[in-house]
Amino acid sequence: MNTVSIILKKRDGRALSEEEIRYLVKGFTEGEIPDYQMSAFLMAVCFQGMNHDETVCLTREMKLSGDTADLSGIHGIKIDKHSTGGVGDKTTLICGPLAAACGVPVAKMSGRGLGFTGGTVDKLESVPGYQTAIEEEKFFDLVNSNGISVIGQTAHIAPADKKIYALRDVTGTVENLSLITSSIMSKKLASGSDGILLDVKCGRGAFMKTPEDAEELARMMVEIGNADGKRTMAVITDMNQPLGNAVGNALEVREAIQVLQGKGPEDITELSLTLAGLMVYMGEKADSPQSGYEKAKEALDSGAGLAKLRDLFQGQGGDPRAADDPELLALSEYSYDVPAPRDGYIESLDAEKIGIASQHTGAGREKKDDDVDHGAGILLHAKTGDSVRQGDPLCTVYSSDKESLVRIGEEALSAFAFSDVKPAARPLIYKIIGDGEEK
Amino acid sequence: MNTVSIILKKRDGRALSEEEIRYLVKGFTEGEIPDYQMSAFLMAVCFQGMNHDETVCLTREMKLSGDTADLSGIHGIKIDKHSTGGVGDKTTLICGPLAAACGVPVAKMSGRGLGFTGGTVDKLESVPGYQTAIEEEKFFDLVNSNGISVIGQTAHIAPADKKIYALRDVTGTVENLSLITSSIMSKKLASGSDGILLDVKCGRGAFMKTPEDAEELARMMVEIGNADGKRTMAVITDMNQPLGNAVGNALEVREAIQVLQGKGPEDITELSLTLAGLMVYMGEKADSPQSGYEKAKEALDSGAGLAKLRDLFQGQGGDPRAADDPELLALSEYSYDVPAPRDGYIESLDAEKIGIASQHTGAGREKKDDDVDHGAGILLHAKTGDSVRQGDPLCTVYSSDKESLVRIGEEALSAFAFSDVKPAARPLIYKIIGDGEEK
Repeated sequence: MNTVSIILKKRDGRALSEEEIRYLVKGFTEGEIPDYQMSAFLMAVCFQGMNHDETVCLTREMKLSGDTADLSGIHGIKIDKHSTGGVGDKTTLICGPLAAACGVPVAKMSGRGLGFTGGTVDKLESVPGYQTAIEEEKFFDLVNSNGISVIGQTAHIAPADKKIYALRDVTGTVENLSLITSSIMSKKLASGSDGILLDVKCGRGAFMKTPEDAEELARMMVEIGNADGKRTMAVITDMNQPLGNAVGNALEVREAIQVLQGKGPEDITELSLTLAGLMVYMGEKADSPQSGYEKAKEALDSGAGLAKLRDLFQGQGGDPRAADDPELLALSEYSYDVPAPRDGYIESLDAEKIGIASQHTGAGREKKDDDVDHGAGILLHAKTGDSVRQGDPLCTVYSSDKESLVRIGEEALSAFAFSDVKPAARPLIYKIIGDGEEK
Repeated sequence: MNTVSIILKKRDGRALSEEEIRYLVKGFTEGEIPDYQMSAFLMAVCFQGMNHDETVCLTREMKLSGDTADLSGIHGIKIDKHSTGGVGDKTTLICGPLAAACGVPVAKMSGRGLGFTGGTVDKLESVPGYQTAIEEEKFFDLVNSNGISVIGQTAHIAPADKKIYALRDVTGTVENLSLITSSIMSKKLASGSDGILLDVKCGRGAFMKTPEDAEELARMMVEIGNADGKRTMAVITDMNQPLGNAVGNALEVREAIQVLQGKGPEDITELSLTLAGLMVYMGEKADSPQSGYEKAKEALDSGAGLAKLRDLFQGQGGDPRAADDPELLALSEYSYDVPAPRDGYIESLDAEKIGIASQHTGAGREKKDDDVDHGAGILLHAKTGDSVRQGDPLCTVYSSDKESLVRIGEEALSAFAFSDVKPAARPLIYKIIGDGEEK
């Protein structure tokens, strides 16, 4: 086997064999194939693509490059929910407790990572006392007794993906469906769950800009997941504007609590119920997604979901009172209300710009070793379609750095576009993919 | 300026600006742009190509990455002849002296390089006493007095090309016309000559397999040379079988002497006269290529060309008697005649296989620091179209390693294909490109 001949084969549009893909992934992960050969290969893939079999094989080899979690010590059907990433997406903190309340075990190992805000474990660390570094045995016990636990990722999951992604990021080779699919699915397939529910975002704040592109990616991921033997479904959802009103860490946990209290914004409530319903269906606690949705709605209305959030906090050392009193989650010392510059309707609200402004408050990491400021972020008071009067607060910026407030406020303001006419409403959920389709 | 955005621009099919190309070449040569970004860029170029302006700019920036030779101390119009590489190509040793005999100064700085045999300077070192490491002043004096000197390349010519070519070689990004053109022309344009004559080979032993592909490359190189202000012409010639009968170092110098004595094989004689004629024409010592050819022929017939070869040897410390007695050039101690396995015509003779067998005798370098065995190589006794009887010697293998003779003989034999019918003759010179065309 020879790396140059594999590069040439792909460059010339031919499909690679399993042995060739294995040789590449293993060789690159172990440092025997240098970066410059891998990046030439990745660019060739951007032009020639990979077929279904190649993508299945690439994903599997990346999955097998590291540890695969064994969750067999946890009873029941475990469903891993994964979002392709958006601004203000705190659905895990809502659909997790709702699914757990419906009897689906939620055993979530979550990363930190770079981004507009911290990861799910960073967000949970804004709950006073909450511990995310938990031993495996305790983690299993918590899920078996409480139905839910969310801890930090410790296992050495898909190191090939880490290495390949870092290279793609700096060589203009991010935009290829097979490469995106293998990156996401190699990690999910190594995560030890029985099923995978993907929330594929599209719009300004997402990697996929249109529902059509998102659907193409979603279909490929669902195919690859099922081909690797894991039941996989996907939901295509809108990410033109942030989800809910809160973007940050403590701010987002506060909003998750409000949703579980029945007092949250409509969009995030609706999406969380849909996702929870699918988890309940995939976890075989309902016969259809619709029935799953209804069970999740009951769990919300009865307070059973909120009770599971309380259990989650308490099980890992967090203050259980926070589930009833979100103000126990501290926000930054300084805040600044951004006033509306004119009367009118919010015509659009650019999710990506709000995300970047949030990162600048300190809520998200720019570099791997940065600390996250749990109290920082942005709270929106008006979203697309809302009408405002000049001077009304559009959003509040929270930061520990008083000097930066006005500057970040201006960044946030630039995300808003105004109009004299109310814009047409846009759907939040475009489509559900997999398992018989369009439920 | 940002490397990733330049890669993306090319990946997406857009033309780069001069500033962007300069940034890339300079950054890569100076080590600021890493190999993995350059190789991704090169692969994008293989798919999207570069337009005329981009190729002109890339070539110029690569040329300017190092020294450019100043040959203004040499009187007259200097024409640099360059072959894209073939097996048995010793034309420089023939057309150089012929052009010099016609009054065109020949100031050749030649490399060593990897290949089937050594470079021109390696070949000349098989002449007893010949020195290739000569000071610039002496080099200029030799050309001004004798009309010809051939020395080793010492200047730091186009380091960007060395670095880029090394990367292309191991990343499957060799096959692109703009990249090939910039690699060859950046060095030639830095060489200080007044004009460039390119011998673009096509066929089994060449990089370009068909006359059409060779013509496309030739046209691009001629365009780029002229765009950079140097009169450039090209000849498309056949390289399906080796040129002449000798493949090696001493073997090839012996054959060059025989050609200048009027006793050489027809193909190499004819091509050398054509090239010399074009050098005479480009050097303004003849009004047309045809007239140049006639002058070169006169120089051959009169022995004036051979006299220049003798001057070349003597001027650089070599034994001038070698020009009259080629046997003064030593061959390897061991030799082996490869017998024809059957009666018949030679249907074809694979230049590349003979080249590889020659390299295995020690005549060529496999690695940069290898020594060349000046006496080793392969001497052909039958070529395409010749009829042989079973047992006739097809070729003789020369090597210092007695053990390898039979094995290399088998490799050489595998280059021959036989037929009961005499194959149709193939043209040696397909086309002349540039300067009014098709002369």
